[in-house]
Amino acid sequence: MVEKKVRIGLVGFGTIGSGVAKLIIEQGDLIAYQRGLRLELGCVVDIDTESPRPVKLPDGILTNDIDRLLNDKSIHIGVELVGGTNAAKDIQLKMLAAGKDVVTANKALLAEFGNELYKAAQKNGHCIAFEASCAGGIPIISAIRTGLAANNIKGFYGIVNGTCNYILSNMTAEDKDFSQALAQAQQKGYAEADPTLDINGMDSAHKLAILASIAFGSEVALEDIFVEGIEGVSKEDICYGGEMGYVLKLLAIGKKNDASKISLRVHPSFILNNSRLAHVDGSFNAVSIFGDAVGQLMYYGRGAGMMPTASAVVADIIDVALGNSANTFRHLQLKSRSETEPLIEKIDNLVNRYYIRIMCKDQPGVIARWSKVLAEHQISISGALQHEGHGPENTVPVVITTHPTQQKNVTAALEDMEKLEVIGGKPVCIRIVDIPEDGQE
Amino acid sequence: MVEKKVRIGLVGFGTIGSGVAKLIIEQGDLIAYQRGLRLELGCVVDIDTESPRPVKLPDGILTNDIDRLLNDKSIHIGVELVGGTNAAKDIQLKMLAAGKDVVTANKALLAEFGNELYKAAQKNGHCIAFEASCAGGIPIISAIRTGLAANNIKGFYGIVNGTCNYILSNMTAEDKDFSQALAQAQQKGYAEADPTLDINGMDSAHKLAILASIAFGSEVALEDIFVEGIEGVSKEDICYGGEMGYVLKLLAIGKKNDASKISLRVHPSFILNNSRLAHVDGSFNAVSIFGDAVGQLMYYGRGAGMMPTASAVVADIIDVALGNSANTFRHLQLKSRSETEPLIEKIDNLVNRYYIRIMCKDQPGVIARWSKVLAEHQISISGALQHEGHGPENTVPVVITTHPTQQKNVTAALEDMEKLEVIGGKPVCIRIVDIPEDGQE
Repeated sequence: MVEKKVRIGLVGFGTIGSGVAKLIIEQGDLIAYQRGLRLELGCVVDIDTESPRPVKLPDGILTNDIDRLLNDKSIHIGVELVGGTNAAKDIQLKMLAAGKDVVTANKALLAEFGNELYKAAQKNGHCIAFEASCAGGIPIISAIRTGLAANNIKGFYGIVNGTCNYILSNMTAEDKDFSQALAQAQQKGYAEADPTLDINGMDSAHKLAILASIAFGSEVALEDIFVEGIEGVSKEDICYGGEMGYVLKLLAIGKKNDASKISLRVHPSFILNNSRLAHVDGSFNAVSIFGDAVGQLMYYGRGAGMMPTASAVVADIIDVALGNSANTFRHLQLKSRSETEPLIEKIDNLVNRYYIRIMCKDQPGVIARWSKVLAEHQISISGALQHEGHGPENTVPVVITTHPTQQKNVTAALEDMEKLEVIGGKPVCIRIVDIPEDGQE
Repeated sequence: MVEKKVRIGLVGFGTIGSGVAKLIIEQGDLIAYQRGLRLELGCVVDIDTESPRPVKLPDGILTNDIDRLLNDKSIHIGVELVGGTNAAKDIQLKMLAAGKDVVTANKALLAEFGNELYKAAQKNGHCIAFEASCAGGIPIISAIRTGLAANNIKGFYGIVNGTCNYILSNMTAEDKDFSQALAQAQQKGYAEADPTLDINGMDSAHKLAILASIAFGSEVALEDIFVEGIEGVSKEDICYGGEMGYVLKLLAIGKKNDASKISLRVHPSFILNNSRLAHVDGSFNAVSIFGDAVGQLMYYGRGAGMMPTASAVVADIIDVALGNSANTFRHLQLKSRSETEPLIEKIDNLVNRYYIRIMCKDQPGVIARWSKVLAEHQISISGALQHEGHGPENTVPVVITTHPTQQKNVTAALEDMEKLEVIGGKPVCIRIVDIPEDGQE
């Protein structure tokens, strides 16, 4: 079979860029044989052209001059792996203007400026492929767009940040404090020196915005998403939740209800310890998706790392080179912001179950006081746990789980409880997420 | 956006056919909006045009005359859902000859005649799409061909038959005999009236042949696959294996070793109870795949049933209509049989660990006798379990697990053990499959 030669320009020669170059070079024959495509690196652009990388490029293709890529008409695909938003956006727009299809792993950029970039690409008759932007090596974008194309997607629940999952798994399995677990994640390379965007939930929110936009066919904005990170999680709550049958995960949740209202949120979530996502440990990612025809599907794999992410980038390059991405992208129809906004369900209206921990003074009448507050806010108690023995300053931890109730009732109840003089400090509140079993959603 | 109208002809209006018609009719607007395609049923062909179905077709499109489909030039996609091999093969070839692309869920046909059909399609410049042939609603074919396109696939381990998994899950959880569990599966609609192809492993072998051909890029034949079903499995062995930390599953395994030798097999397999596939219960399917770049991926979902399978068929119809399937199919390069055959590793040479149960007479010197036989065949014992108490006719069950050893050594040892007069009956032997953790393979 005749091989089609496809020349690629790479911008960003860091970890992922090195992995992409490595795959293009080392799997070249396999890809040529199995897909009929001969991938060729036209140039690799990076500010730093000196530092050693884990891959040897052909002579003369590494440059710090992006115009070399933009002006090279033989390069059909531009791969943006710079990260961040400002420079990256400029680079993608320039690539599109120069007549190139774009492949990217940049979730922050797409979450913030995706709608604008998609329109620029469609206007130019080009495509943007972004499989690597969500859940690293797991081909989740193509699963939604291709494999589930005949489904009305009802919702999805994802563990999409490997750093947070590593930290929470570690806190759970080894009874570590948050700071200890974070330090270990950094030491092992699962967390960056500045882990802010990971642990505050924003990285998960970026991925949620992208997944939700294609799953629900809507222009999603970051401000549509309720975000709470894992910085405030204590090992005590992981332990008490565990005693009650729950495991703590940072979930990114997108749900469409029967009235087509969409809820989007990222927060620490207690899930039943026998649910499928409860067994996703360490730096792994997983996404459970519910389609109305297919029922529940789950995808599991490596959500980050040099070669898994590069695997997704090169899969996209191949898909773009075959012309399939263009076919799919041309039909990427997203409901506009003005149509989408009224459909977004506010967090206050969401119904959840809740885990609440209060530190009660060890004296008569305490239960009557806090249970009265819950009753006043129509909150029904599902379970409760109070160990014998004394907490600090003669307080004891009391853990309550609730039946389904609206967020605003819980928020109001927590405020009232905090004012009770029999309770010490601020109550802890963690949402319990009941992931539906197949067929229920 | 302008909608592209795509007319479809359906052959086979049974369970899956009804599901496909239902999706095409009921999700028509969603698919038109999200993919720019207006799917339209041109005709539906079935011998039985009278029986009620769970979907109402537009008037006049149900027919028993396949020529109506073949001669209708406005129909571009033919969907074969007849099942079986003879008539189905004829139908697919006629559809291709009539200039139509083909979508099918027929694993038996593709496993047996796939190579011939693929060539016929490529010769005609058409494509055959077969996502629904493996693992029902799980988009595993597109995952391998698209999402993992940059990977050298090292192996995969699949639970791909829902009937067997339902039976084994039931035997495990409820301590049922095989025949009781089978009867329950039939009663609940998870097993057909004639379950032969499911329980003897052939259905799994069909799916393995298809998955292996695309994962390894080789023309695989059914005779390359070693097949053992679950008919002979006893609840006692599930119980003893459980005590030693294992769960019994029927696995379809495709593996490529470092010398590019390929082993293909379907057999009852003890896997560690903390492995990911061990938690796939009931009629669900799951496949763990290992790519050299991406590491381990796992896909989980419904492997059968009307709507999950229809979901995969309609996804294929959309992919064909967009032109993507043709792009992918054109590049489907499979190593010929003459290249493939020498690479197939014979089961006798395979190295496994084994679970062996023998019924020993309760008298002195027995251990010395059977352990000598194992030693003579270079088989090293990893674990052993003998409960106190008497078996039938004064025998006691002794369970041994071995270190890795070649199949032929075990086969020879079992023959010698059967001859020992201190052992009653035929030893039971079940392979232990150590599914590699991510990174090991």
